[in-house]
Amino acid sequence: MISEECYEFGSKSSIIREIFSFGLKRKAEIGADRVYDFSLGNPSIPAPKSVKKAILDLMEQPPEVIHAYSPAPGDASVRRTIAQSLNRRFGESFTEENIFMTCGAAASLNICIKALGNPGDEFITFAPFFPEYRCWVEGIGADFKVIPPHMPDFQIDLEALEKAVTPKTKGIIVNSPNNPSGVVYTEEMLKGLVGILKKKSETYGSPIYLITDEPYREIVYDGVTVPYLTKYYDNTLVCYSYSKSLSLPGERIGYIVIPDQLADYKRVSSAIAGAARVLGFVCAPALFQQVVARCVEDTGDIEAYKNNRDLLLNGLTELGYTCVPPQGAFYLFVKSLEEDAYAFCEKAKKYDLLLVPSDDFGCPGYVRIAYCVAEKMIVNAMPAFKKLMEEYRLFS
Amino acid sequence: MISEECYEFGSKSSIIREIFSFGLKRKAEIGADRVYDFSLGNPSIPAPKSVKKAILDLMEQPPEVIHAYSPAPGDASVRRTIAQSLNRRFGESFTEENIFMTCGAAASLNICIKALGNPGDEFITFAPFFPEYRCWVEGIGADFKVIPPHMPDFQIDLEALEKAVTPKTKGIIVNSPNNPSGVVYTEEMLKGLVGILKKKSETYGSPIYLITDEPYREIVYDGVTVPYLTKYYDNTLVCYSYSKSLSLPGERIGYIVIPDQLADYKRVSSAIAGAARVLGFVCAPALFQQVVARCVEDTGDIEAYKNNRDLLLNGLTELGYTCVPPQGAFYLFVKSLEEDAYAFCEKAKKYDLLLVPSDDFGCPGYVRIAYCVAEKMIVNAMPAFKKLMEEYRLFS
Repeated sequence: MISEECYEFGSKSSIIREIFSFGLKRKAEIGADRVYDFSLGNPSIPAPKSVKKAILDLMEQPPEVIHAYSPAPGDASVRRTIAQSLNRRFGESFTEENIFMTCGAAASLNICIKALGNPGDEFITFAPFFPEYRCWVEGIGADFKVIPPHMPDFQIDLEALEKAVTPKTKGIIVNSPNNPSGVVYTEEMLKGLVGILKKKSETYGSPIYLITDEPYREIVYDGVTVPYLTKYYDNTLVCYSYSKSLSLPGERIGYIVIPDQLADYKRVSSAIAGAARVLGFVCAPALFQQVVARCVEDTGDIEAYKNNRDLLLNGLTELGYTCVPPQGAFYLFVKSLEEDAYAFCEKAKKYDLLLVPSDDFGCPGYVRIAYCVAEKMIVNAMPAFKKLMEEYRLFS
Repeated sequence: MISEECYEFGSKSSIIREIFSFGLKRKAEIGADRVYDFSLGNPSIPAPKSVKKAILDLMEQPPEVIHAYSPAPGDASVRRTIAQSLNRRFGESFTEENIFMTCGAAASLNICIKALGNPGDEFITFAPFFPEYRCWVEGIGADFKVIPPHMPDFQIDLEALEKAVTPKTKGIIVNSPNNPSGVVYTEEMLKGLVGILKKKSETYGSPIYLITDEPYREIVYDGVTVPYLTKYYDNTLVCYSYSKSLSLPGERIGYIVIPDQLADYKRVSSAIAGAARVLGFVCAPALFQQVVARCVEDTGDIEAYKNNRDLLLNGLTELGYTCVPPQGAFYLFVKSLEEDAYAFCEKAKKYDLLLVPSDDFGCPGYVRIAYCVAEKMIVNAMPAFKKLMEEYRLFS
C-alpha cells in the first residue's frame, strides 16, 4: 500500500492540465491558430530584456561561484536587494533577515502553511481561489474552509468570515489580484478583514496569520493600487513569485517576507527554515536568485495584458456575456451560459474555445479565461464566442 | 502554537552549516587561505564548458518559450534525451514516461519517500548516511531505521539488514558512492541486498522498494563501476541530481527514474506526481532542464577530485590517521583521534582545520573531510593535520 493521499492527488489530474492537453492534441489536428486556448496562466509577454542581459552578465562569472549552493534562506546580498526594493516601494523597513528565497509561489505558500499549521488546525480562504491551496492545507492534515464571494463584486464577504473564524483558525490565505476573478480587494475591504483578525486573535489569545499570495501584484490596470498587507497587520507573511511579473514561471523563483513584527518572529522564522527542509527545498535556484536581484523592479510589458483585457471584456460584454470586471492579473471570470460550467465548456470546445470551468476554484457556474495570450487570438476567437452565445439563445 | 516539528528542524541548524558559518567568520579574521575548510560538499571544479555554451545557445530562443512552465513531470524531449542516455549507458529500455524531472536530489528523494510511505511504515538505510534522510522519513510519520556499517570495509551488513526488515518495511535507501564514507558498494554486496529484499517481499506479500540516491554516480576512481540497480531489482526507484556531476548544486535539477517493471507502475507513477504536487514542486527549473539535456553525458574534470583524494589519503595515512579508503564521491571518512568526534573537531579548529563530526551521519567516532576543494588547500593543510596528530601523541 503506497500513499493513498499522493495517489489521489496524482491521479486526479487538474482540469486545467486536462484542457491544456486536449488543446495540444486539437492544435496538432487543425493547426495552432485555429484553437482558441485560454486554459493556462503561462505569461505570453516575454521577460523584460534585462533578464537576458543579467543572465549573459552572470555567465562571465566563474561557474563554480554562480552555480554553487546558496545558504538555505538564499544569497544574503540578493535578499538585501529585495528588502531594499520593498522598503522603497512600500515604506517598509525590512532587512535580508526578513526575506527567505524560495522555488516560487507554490513553495512559498506550502512552506508557510507547513510552518504554521498542525493537524486539526483550520486555514480559511475566499472563493474563487487557486485549487492547489486545498492540496497543501489538507496535505498537513488541517481543515480547508472556503468563504463564498460577496456578490456581485467578488470582494470578501466579511460577515461570513467573522462567523467562520474559530479558535482553530491558524491562517487566512488572501490572493489579490485574484486568480481566477481578476478582482483586486479594496483597501477598505482589507481593513475590514484585518479588523476581524485582530479582534478574533485577541478573543482567542493566539495569533491568526494572514498569508498573502501575490504573484500578480504588479499586474494591475486603471491605476488601482494593491495595499501591502504588512503595513496593516503585524502577523502577515507575504508570498511572492517572479513567475508573472518577470514572465519566468518555469524558473521557480520567489520569496517569503517574514516581518520582525510577527508576534513570534524568531519561532516562525525557524519554522519556515524547518518547513523548507522537511519539504525538500535546499535553496532557491542560484542563477535566478542573482537574476531577479538585477531585475528587482522590472516587469514585462503589462500594457499588453491591459489591451487584451479591454478587447476581451468589451467584446464579450457586447455579445451579451456577464463578466466580473477585472482590475488585475490576466484572467477574466465569465458567467457560464448554463448552470453546469463543465457542460458549458464542453459546448465551447465545439467552437475550439478552451475555457476552464470554475468548480475547482470553489465558485461553480463560471469559466476562467486566461488572457495572457497573443492579441490576435482574442480577435480571432470573437466569432467563436458569438456562435456559442447564439447556440444558447437558439435553445433558450 | 505553530508547527513544533518544523520549528525543531529549523532551529537545530545542521552541524555542517554551523561549521561552514564559523569558517566564513574565521576567514574574515585571518584570511581565506589560512583556514582549511573541509566542511561543505560544494563542488570546487567548475561546470564543464558545455554548460555555459548551452545557456548561451538557449538565450537565443524566445524568452517566453525558454522560461515557460514545463509539464509537471518535465519537458518531454528532455526526458527522452535522459532516458536514451541511460539506455545507452546501462542497457536499459526507458522512455520519457519513466523519467520525472525534479528540483535536485533532495526533491527526488523526498518525493519518493512521500509517494510510497504511510505513517507507521519503516524506511531503512545504512550508516553512515546523509542526515536529511531522517528528516524526510520522520516528516511523513514513518520510522527511520539505521543499519550500522559492516567493519572495517564500510560495506553493507547484510545479516543485520535481514534481521531488521519487517512487514512494515516500505523502502530501503541506498547511497553509493556514499556520502560521507566515499565507499562504493560492490556488485556482490548489492546482489546480496537484492536477494534479501526479494525474499522478504515474497514472504510478506508486498513490495519493498529500493530507493537509490546517486548524485555521485559519475564521481568514481580506480576504474570502479557502480551497478545500475534497476537491472538487479524490479522495485527500484533511482534518484539522481546533476549537482555533483555537472557542478550545478545551486540550480536544483535532477530526476527520478520510475521503471515500467515496478510491481504497481501506474499507481507509483501517479503517487510520485501527487507527492510532487503536495510538496509544492510545480516543475523542475525550466532553463536547466534544457541545459542538462544538452550536457547529458558530460561531467566536470573528475581527475581533479582523484588527485585530491590521493594527496589527502596518502598524506593523512602517512601521518598516522586511519582512513576509510574511498573509491568515489569527494569525501574522506577518517577515524577521530578520540572517542568524541565533536571534541576532536574542536581541537582541529585550533589549527584552523574545519572537519565535520560523524555523529549526524549515524556513525560516531569519525570525521568527514570534503575534498572538493583547491589542491593547494590540501597541501597547505598537511602541517596542521601533523600538529593535530602531535597534540594527541603528546597527551596519550
